[in-house]
Formats: sequence, C-alpha cells, structure tokens
Amino acid sequence: MIKTPYQQLEDRWRKMDALAGAQSMLHWDMSAMMPSGGAESRAEQLATLATLSHAMITDPAVPDLLDGAEADPHLNPWQLANVREMRRAWVHGAAVDADLVESLSRACSACETVWRNARADNDFATVLPKLSEVLNLSRQMAAAKADKLGLEPYDALLDQYEPDGRAAAIEPVFADLKSFLPDFLQDVLAAQAAGPRIEPLTGPFPAAQQKALGQTFMAALGFDFAHGRLDESLHPFCGGTQDDVRLTTRYDEANFAPALMGVLHETGHALYEQGLPKAWRGQPVGQARGMSLHESQSLLIEMQACRSREFLQYAQPLLCEAFGGSGPAWSVDNLARLYTRVERGFIRVDADEVTYPAHVILRFELEKAAIAGDLQMQDLPGAWNDGLEALLGIRPPTDREGCLQDIHWFDGAWGYFPTYTLGAMTAAQLFAKAKQDVPAILPGIATGDFAPLLAWLRTHVHEQGCLLSTKDLLKQATNEPLNAKHFTAHLKARYLPL
Amino acid sequence: MIKTPYQQLEDRWRKMDALAGAQSMLHWDMSAMMPSGGAESRAEQLATLATLSHAMITDPAVPDLLDGAEADPHLNPWQLANVREMRRAWVHGAAVDADLVESLSRACSACETVWRNARADNDFATVLPKLSEVLNLSRQMAAAKADKLGLEPYDALLDQYEPDGRAAAIEPVFADLKSFLPDFLQDVLAAQAAGPRIEPLTGPFPAAQQKALGQTFMAALGFDFAHGRLDESLHPFCGGTQDDVRLTTRYDEANFAPALMGVLHETGHALYEQGLPKAWRGQPVGQARGMSLHESQSLLIEMQACRSREFLQYAQPLLCEAFGGSGPAWSVDNLARLYTRVERGFIRVDADEVTYPAHVILRFELEKAAIAGDLQMQDLPGAWNDGLEALLGIRPPTDREGCLQDIHWFDGAWGYFPTYTLGAMTAAQLFAKAKQDVPAILPGIATGDFAPLLAWLRTHVHEQGCLLSTKDLLKQATNEPLNAKHFTAHLKARYLPL
Repeated sequence: MIKTPYQQLEDRWRKMDALAGAQSMLHWDMSAMMPSGGAESRAEQLATLATLSHAMITDPAVPDLLDGAEADPHLNPWQLANVREMRRAWVHGAAVDADLVESLSRACSACETVWRNARADNDFATVLPKLSEVLNLSRQMAAAKADKLGLEPYDALLDQYEPDGRAAAIEPVFADLKSFLPDFLQDVLAAQAAGPRIEPLTGPFPAAQQKALGQTFMAALGFDFAHGRLDESLHPFCGGTQDDVRLTTRYDEANFAPALMGVLHETGHALYEQGLPKAWRGQPVGQARGMSLHESQSLLIEMQACRSREFLQYAQPLLCEAFGGSGPAWSVDNLARLYTRVERGFIRVDADEVTYPAHVILRFELEKAAIAGDLQMQDLPGAWNDGLEALLGIRPPTDREGCLQDIHWFDGAWGYFPTYTLGAMTAAQLFAKAKQDVPAILPGIATGDFAPLLAWLRTHVHEQGCLLSTKDLLKQATNEPLNAKHFTAHLKARYLPL
Repeated sequence: MIKTPYQQLEDRWRKMDALAGAQSMLHWDMSAMMPSGGAESRAEQLATLATLSHAMITDPAVPDLLDGAEADPHLNPWQLANVREMRRAWVHGAAVDADLVESLSRACSACETVWRNARADNDFATVLPKLSEVLNLSRQMAAAKADKLGLEPYDALLDQYEPDGRAAAIEPVFADLKSFLPDFLQDVLAAQAAGPRIEPLTGPFPAAQQKALGQTFMAALGFDFAHGRLDESLHPFCGGTQDDVRLTTRYDEANFAPALMGVLHETGHALYEQGLPKAWRGQPVGQARGMSLHESQSLLIEMQACRSREFLQYAQPLLCEAFGGSGPAWSVDNLARLYTRVERGFIRVDADEVTYPAHVILRFELEKAAIAGDLQMQDLPGAWNDGLEALLGIRPPTDREGCLQDIHWFDGAWGYFPTYTLGAMTAAQLFAKAKQDVPAILPGIATGDFAPLLAWLRTHVHEQGCLLSTKDLLKQATNEPLNAKHFTAHLKARYLPL
C-alpha cells in the first residue's frame, strides 16, 4: 500500500519527534544528573543528534511531500494544522545549514558548562569568549532565518519560540507596562510599609521535607507521576517529553519559598505537556502552542492560583506540618502577606509579580541590541547594571546577581525572554475567564481540589495542541484578543486592595 | 585538505560513538530514572537511534573506505588495530537489515518493560509472548550474521560480545568445570559444616549508609566521581560512557552484602571503562576488548580482591562504623567466613564463586538450545528448573527464582552468558600474575590502598583498549593462554584451606 505524502510526513515526524525526545532527555540529564567530567562527551552526543535531526528535516524529499500534503483535499482540520506546523518547522530548519547547526550545538554545550562555574564563582570574564561565540553563531542563525522568513533577525529568533511573535507588537505593550509600573510599585511599597508588619519564617527547612511537600502539591494539582518526576538542578526547568516530564527545582534550607514556588511554576508547564492531545503524540500539531502560552500555564498555576488566599488556606496546615510551624508567623494572614510581598530584587526567578516585568523588559532590550550588533558581550555587565538601575532603581553588586544569573543566552536561547511577560498577561486573562466560567474554581483551590481548574485548562488550552494559532486559541478561550488590562487589574486587586 | 579514507572512517566512527553514547545514557535512564509511563516513548527513541546508527554503519561509502584504509601503508599499530575493529563492526552491522534492527530494538524495549512487572509478580505467562518475539528476532539476527561471518548462529551472537569466542572452545572448558565442581562443592560444604559456626549479622542496614559506604569503597578503588555516579536499579549494571560511567545497585535493608558486593563488582567494570586509552576516545580501538575481559575486571575486583582476607582487614572497621556493628559477629574472622560461605542458591547474582559457574553453564546450555530452535520459550521454566536441579540439586520454587531472574534474554542479550565464567577464569589468572609481579598489592589492599593493583590493571589491561585480541592480551599480560587451573587453584586455596 502506497502511503500518501501526508502519511509519509507523519512517519518522518514521528522519528524526528523521537530524536527530539532523546535530545531533551540528554539535556535534562546534563542539568540534573551528569557529573562534570561528562560534559565533553555529552556535547558530542548532542551535536550528533542535532546534525541528524537537521538532516531529517532538510531531506530533499520534504518540500515535495509538503506540497503534496497541502494539495490533499481529504485532510481534516487537525491534519491540515499538522501540515501547517510541519511547513513552519521546515522553513525554520531548512533556513540554516548543517555546519551552523552543529557549531551552535557545540558552542552552547561548551558555554553552558563554563557558565555553571562562572556563575558559582561570579566570574564573567571566564565565560565571555564562549558567550561571544554563542552570540556570534546565534546572529548567523538569525540572519539566515530572517532571510528565508522575510523577518527582522530578532523576530526570526523570537518566531522559533513564539510563532508569529514580533518585536514591533511587543514594544508598545512593554512601553505601557514601563510607564505603569514605577508609580504602581511606589504605591504598593507605600501601602505595604503602612500595613501590618510581616513576620519572617525561621528555618532551617530541610530539603527532604521541601521535596515531599512539593510532590504533595504536584499530585494535588494533577501531575501524573507515572509520566514524570521531580529532581534538582542549578536552574529549575521543565524538560523531558509529554509522556515523561522531568521537573527540576533547587533547595535553599534557609527559605523554602523559592523551591516551592519553583515547583508550582514548573508543574504548570508540566500539566500543559501532560495534557496535550494524546492522539497527536509525535506530531507537530500535538505539541505545545508556543512559549507565551507555555509560560501562561506556569504562571497561571504559580502566580494566579497558588499565590491566592484560597491556596494559602489549603496550604497553611500542610506547611505547618511539614516544617513544624506554629504561631502568628504561620497564620494564613501572615503567609499571604509574605507571598505577596513586593520588593526590588536582583534575581528574576525570585522576583514578585510586580517587579518581574522589569526584569523581562531589561533582557528584551539587551537581547534586541545584542542581536542587532549594537551590544558586544564585553559590555554586557555594564549595560545590564545600568538597565536594571534605570528600571528598578537598584544596581547588582556582582555579575552573579546580574548578567550571570540566567542560563538562556549562555545556552543559545536568544529571543525567548519576552514570552515570560506575554505569558503573565495571558495567564491573567485566562484565569479571569476560567473563574467566570467555573465559579467552583476558587472554592476548590481552598480545599486542595484543583480538578475544576485543570478541567477548564485541559479543554481550553492543553487539548488544543497546535490546532489554532496562539491568537485564535486565546480568542476562542476568552472571547477577546490579548488584553493587558487583565494583568494590571490583577496586580491592582492583589497588591492595592481597597 | 582531502582526508584519507582512514581519517574519514575516524570521523564517521566518532559520530557513531556519540550516537552509541546517547543510546547508552537512555538505557541507563530507562533502568534507573524513567517513570513507568515513559516506556513507550523511550522505545521510540531507542528504535530511532538504533536505526540511525545502523544507517551510518551500512552507508555504501563504508566498504570502500575500509578497503582504502586497509591498503594505507602509513598507519601505526593502533590505527591498524582501529581499522581491524571497524571492519569487525561493519561485518556485524551490515549483516542485518534495517527493519530487523528496528524490530529488535522495539521488541527488546517492550519485553524488558513487561519483564519488570512479570518478575515482580512471578508471572512468566505475561512475558512469554514478548520473550518469544525477542527470541524469534534474535534467531533471525543470528542466522543473518552466521551467514556473513561463516559461523554457527550461536557463535555469531557470542562473537558480538566476545570477539573470536566460539561455543566449541567453551564446551570442553565448561565440561571440565562440570566434572570438577560437584565433588568440590561437597568437600567445601563438608569443611564448612565442620568449621566454626558462622554468626549472622543482624540489621536493619539503612540504604543511605549502604550507599555512603559503597561510595567510600568506590573512591578507594579509584573510581573517578567526576566521570561517573552511583544510582539504583532493579538489575544492577554498569552503563553510560567511558567519560561518564553510570553504576547502579539495589539495596536490601536486611542484608547489606548484595548491594555492597554489587557495587564492588560494577566498580571493576567502571575502572576498566574509565581506564581505557583517552587518546582513542570515540574510536573502536579505544573500546573495551570484549565481555570476558570486562567480566574479568569486575570479578577481579569483587571476588579476587574484595573477598580476600586483606580486604576485610581494611573494610571491617568501616563496616562496623557504618552499621554500628560490634562483637564477635563483626570480627574479621567471622566476616571472612560470611563472605566465603558457600551455599546452593537460586539467584545467580547472589551466588558464591563456587556455585556461580553452575548458573552460567545452565544458561549457556539453554541459550544454545533456544538459538538452535530446540527449546521453545513456553518450555523454558521447566527446562530451567530441571537444569538447575541436575547441576546443583535444588529446584526453584517459583519462576521469579528461576527463569525470570535475569534481564539478559528479555533484553535480547543472547550469547552473553558464557562470558561470565570465562571472565572468572581470566580474573583468577590475571590476579595471580599481578600479585606475582607486584608484591605490594595484597598488603596495599589490607590498608585500603588499591593503587598498586589499579596501576597493574591500567598497564596490562585497561590502557590496551582493543589493540590486541583477547587471547594476545592475556598472553602478553600473563605469559600464557587462558588456563583454567588458576581458577580452580584459587577456589581450592580459598575454600579448602589446609
């Protein structure tokens, strides 16, 4: 039986997906398990897989198969969307030659390895040559893709993470935030200073208890441990595959909040992956839609759902039990104040919701300049510190608290950062609509029953895969396009209550 | 600059080695980390990598490159040996078609997954269809390779693990053992019964302490933790790559010996891998020579070195400290009696040195019959039980203690088992020569200084890679061919002292 072009493409993509899954597992292992001496051979493995993957998508048979599939009148909407996503992946893949793919894979592995120590040692100079090489190769990739996609180089990179994402559309949104946030931040800080004193929680908080509690929350949220696990890494992330999701966090025994909030955040990502349409495993249309929607799922869980007062009503007895807490510091009121405390800080992943966008805007501006060739990496520490000072009024005392803190650029992820704040805005919009559609959501959270929330997300987001564009998915789910007022309304309601 | 055929082959093999490394890591993860729900996608990943790997070695360019390299007059002895091993790998790889490689990879993944539960549930019937399929495909592979190699089908499989290994050469050696062992076993059991009473050690022995102590011994033996780690799995093994060796063991809190001896055994494998010639990473000549030599390294460490009285002198205070042991049961004398206690048992990996060969002979005879088509898998449980009864006089009460115990056949490793006993004989011969060459070895072990032993192994075995054949390596190291009398002499000296 001769297979149609569409069927041949499905077969090919199933293999490419398996290869991508292998790469993803090796990345997870590199971050969570691998001893330092394995770095060089791991880089060889990843470069070899990247090359093979690239060879499969640039196979000369693919363009004809795509043409054939696009002309096939018998495809259903999911299959049509699958072909559309294949075409997208092919344009991105075929735009870059094999040598560049291999060089970039090697450069990223080498740079990430050096970054680990550079970050620990607060030593930007050591990693500068490798970072410059990653940037140089990333700019070559941006130029190659820009040429084929008819986009600006920065947009060509952004488009990898956020299909149809464009800097020109993001800039006015970020400009609005930039004008809204400084005054709002002042007001919030003033209100907090005038409010009740916040009692600190005193540790130590053993890592084993933090992990057990994290797993309890993961299970309550709906994480399926038959299809995933929780480990530790320097930079928390959600990796692996849809059927085997690998979450990581890091533990600080003096403060359990970063690990716990990290787990909740990554669980939001994981629920999305585990909830993608099972009938479309291995196919592009069965993948997550894009990074702003992905980030919306993590922030919806971490920030919208799990910093709510309802969540603290559920979590407070569990926290007290896990850490032997009692007294006024462990009351729901004080915990709520602690977890909605706003503070100017240096570290993005530890930042609160109000100051977080400033971190993202800083990185967005810096990476646009770097990709445009207007910012050399030797000038990055200064530009970073100047930028943070302008945005938040504080200056990192060290590069470790500055430009060394995030893994992204060192691992070649340029054009990724704006998706965090697009995600925050999307999360606010989705959560507002979900609460309106299903009044049981908030009372459920207060008792640790996340099923009503998860059911809404499954239907309106997770099970949609890549059937629709991000824009259309959001419109279908919420009856309006992306609207930043949900985010600012959320911030006002939570941080400046009447 | 145009590369010579030899250089092109080196480039190709470097990529194939990276691919093999990726497969190895994914296998390790499957056994030590993966949640059960990841099995299906992991099988896809492994099948895809196996297919890609096969495509690289069967590329039509390879035979011409091999001819060209073999005719190159400028190669040094290592390069010549490298070409010889490439030819060997090519003959094995090209003998089998891509469909069979993929089917076998999938069948092994599926069967191994079912075996995990079947073993736990003592339910052979559940895994029988999958095992039959693995055998069927393995027999197809054996036939295809036999045809190309001019060997018997069983030998074609054995040759994968033990280059130049032949059943006809093993049979007389095993026949000698089969006639030596029953009477010897009777004598040993009688001597033990007449000797001092063996005091049992009473637990529990917490897994965390077992692990810490295992790591202490690994470090003392010379294991490099920058290039490897220790984890847990159902079936202990040594996997990963030369630069990132992944050991596993399993813990029984009622008895620390199995985990500890398992760690020492796998550390012997790991030291070989870590000690292979660094200049030849990624090339066939830089690999371990074969499985009998590999097993000789694990058994040399576990059985020859670490069941010696000298080892117990070093280990006894550490054992007492780790488990809070004291009194006569924890004396060196009693520990020595415990760790040289001979008992007829059902489980190969828990067997002592004296009864171990009987387990291997049983499997060797069964797998020869299975590959020849004379044993169907539905008859395996009965044949197994009859065979063990004939060899050791005991009959497994369940399949869990019978044919379900080993992972090998379920994972497609047919033709592997005889290498264990070849390894035991090789270990005895190597250790005898090492002690003769370096009198400091035994006194070193008594103080936890394994450097003299490791140095001898590095020089005579590890750093040789695949420069020589197994036979020539052994002759170079010990001045004689494989000679079973070292093994029987060792058994007599340890188990029937005057």
